[in-house]
Amino acid sequence: MNDTFLRACMGEKVDYTPIWIMRQAGRYLPEYQAVRKKVDFLTLCKTPELAAEVTLQPVDILGVDAAILFSDILIPLEPMGVKVRFLEKKGPQLRPVMRKKRDIEKLTVINPKRDVPFVLDTIKLLRRKLRRKVPLIGFSGAPFTLATYMIEGGSSKNFLETKRMMFSAPELFHSLMKRITETTISYLSAQIKAGAQAVQIFDSWAGALSPDDYREHSLPFVKRTIEELKPLGVPIIYFVNNCGGLLELARTSGADVIGIDWRVDISKAITRLGKGVSVQGNLDPLALFSDEGVLEKKVADIIKKGRRARGHIFNLGHGILPQTPPEMAKKLVQMVHELSG
Amino acid sequence: MNDTFLRACMGEKVDYTPIWIMRQAGRYLPEYQAVRKKVDFLTLCKTPELAAEVTLQPVDILGVDAAILFSDILIPLEPMGVKVRFLEKKGPQLRPVMRKKRDIEKLTVINPKRDVPFVLDTIKLLRRKLRRKVPLIGFSGAPFTLATYMIEGGSSKNFLETKRMMFSAPELFHSLMKRITETTISYLSAQIKAGAQAVQIFDSWAGALSPDDYREHSLPFVKRTIEELKPLGVPIIYFVNNCGGLLELARTSGADVIGIDWRVDISKAITRLGKGVSVQGNLDPLALFSDEGVLEKKVADIIKKGRRARGHIFNLGHGILPQTPPEMAKKLVQMVHELSG
Repeated sequence: MNDTFLRACMGEKVDYTPIWIMRQAGRYLPEYQAVRKKVDFLTLCKTPELAAEVTLQPVDILGVDAAILFSDILIPLEPMGVKVRFLEKKGPQLRPVMRKKRDIEKLTVINPKRDVPFVLDTIKLLRRKLRRKVPLIGFSGAPFTLATYMIEGGSSKNFLETKRMMFSAPELFHSLMKRITETTISYLSAQIKAGAQAVQIFDSWAGALSPDDYREHSLPFVKRTIEELKPLGVPIIYFVNNCGGLLELARTSGADVIGIDWRVDISKAITRLGKGVSVQGNLDPLALFSDEGVLEKKVADIIKKGRRARGHIFNLGHGILPQTPPEMAKKLVQMVHELSG
Repeated sequence: MNDTFLRACMGEKVDYTPIWIMRQAGRYLPEYQAVRKKVDFLTLCKTPELAAEVTLQPVDILGVDAAILFSDILIPLEPMGVKVRFLEKKGPQLRPVMRKKRDIEKLTVINPKRDVPFVLDTIKLLRRKLRRKVPLIGFSGAPFTLATYMIEGGSSKNFLETKRMMFSAPELFHSLMKRITETTISYLSAQIKAGAQAVQIFDSWAGALSPDDYREHSLPFVKRTIEELKPLGVPIIYFVNNCGGLLELARTSGADVIGIDWRVDISKAITRLGKGVSVQGNLDPLALFSDEGVLEKKVADIIKKGRRARGHIFNLGHGILPQTPPEMAKKLVQMVHELSG
């Protein structure tokens, strides 16, 4: 198996910079669209054969150095007691919204084997299919990011209700965060036990918080999650979107790898993160709409700067956009391998 | 006149920390709503008596230390040759979108006296009405931020078309940026000559760029703008939204004051900006949905940290939200004055 990705996570010597792409199994790939046409999004997530099929597509088509489970961060919220609907164009809708004590107190911590067996089955199936290929990454949303969906009832621009609760009823907010954290721990532990060889925690909305609020209302729950997962012995990646103000704090999470977005210079980020962690990132996803020459210059720069880190996994600074030409994603993987090898 | 704001901009001694609020004349105020009910948004911008009336409202109601011209950053784009419509809920719509050479070449540099006399008349009217009160701030969008609206045809989530042009046709992009920059210079110069006692350049979307792209595609045009305005002798504030990765670069803009958003710690920002500039910011606009005790803690913290800057103007880290209770805005102004005095 190509273990370059796992080695980079732990800061071990590698022959080249490994790469995978956030949302690499997704709408920009015609092969994904073909599968997706047959079933709705939730059915795709919940059918191991299909979820495994789309997970493998970018491994074969792009030649990335890791596969990531095809699923959605909102999947574990359903068995907690929240009805989740994925509406085309409008994004996810979650009901009831979690703003009242009596609703929050009804939430349960999930039992993955009973509640999300399809996720564990997908992982087991994938491990068999990936045997001589690349490692498999499992994932979940970070507690704060999941909380925003539960409180807002979907995506949000300003996180008005989340912050209103955080600033005016912090105990209530923390009681919700604790429940989500326990579910996250249970969910990721089960993924690792089923065969995930690394896990990524997506804190997609942490960057909406001031550093002080992040320290108080998000970070402790990430720390607790990572603490519980550490004994399971797989690399833990903590992706902090819009991390520019948060890196010094994110470093204390205990993660083996900090994933960063493109709005920071990776060289400066490495300095701020120090020698104790590997770094993942951080090409602007929109760079895949460049001329090849412009793309190559950007990729070479990130690879060069990334060498200063304990370990560097190349990735985009956020998920690949549905409009991305697949040939540019292929080109990117080739470039990273050639320029770093 | 209360010149505390102007003194803080230039790093002179002040008796307390001055405060104004981005979008302080706006929808959260019932008094604004009352005026707005009578006319549409563009008519309000273009009628000096009404624009002046809503500009003055927060000065009287909140007791802020500066007034800011009521207008919109898209106003100078109309006389350049772009049709701008403000659609309720859907946001602005600009046509034609600027993606082709022949469209960009048709754009003209505005002549403010001829093209936007209502802006200059509003400023003159306001200076008379503000005589013994507070200074008046003029403003414009930064060239990059204005370019995104022109290229996308409105607001945008990912700036796909803007970055596509930037990365695949940089000369074309720069030719658009140059035209916008000349308009911005002419527009702000005219505002200052009409009586604006400070100007703020809003780079609302600069934070969507990687630091390298910001250095190449946005900053030079801001620098050129500020260079041209400097001889006019009023303080220049450069607001960089989502500045976490950009502060060291923004510092080189030549502005007297750097406005920062709430996603960075103001103390760290001051260190990164150095002693040569004053700092404006940076309370999370959502903090106005807090308990008073929580708000006070946050305000006191920012004031304390702000003392390390050459000068500090208190502000939110982004515009005040329409849903904000007006009494919380009042409370904020009182708190800043009391805690810093």
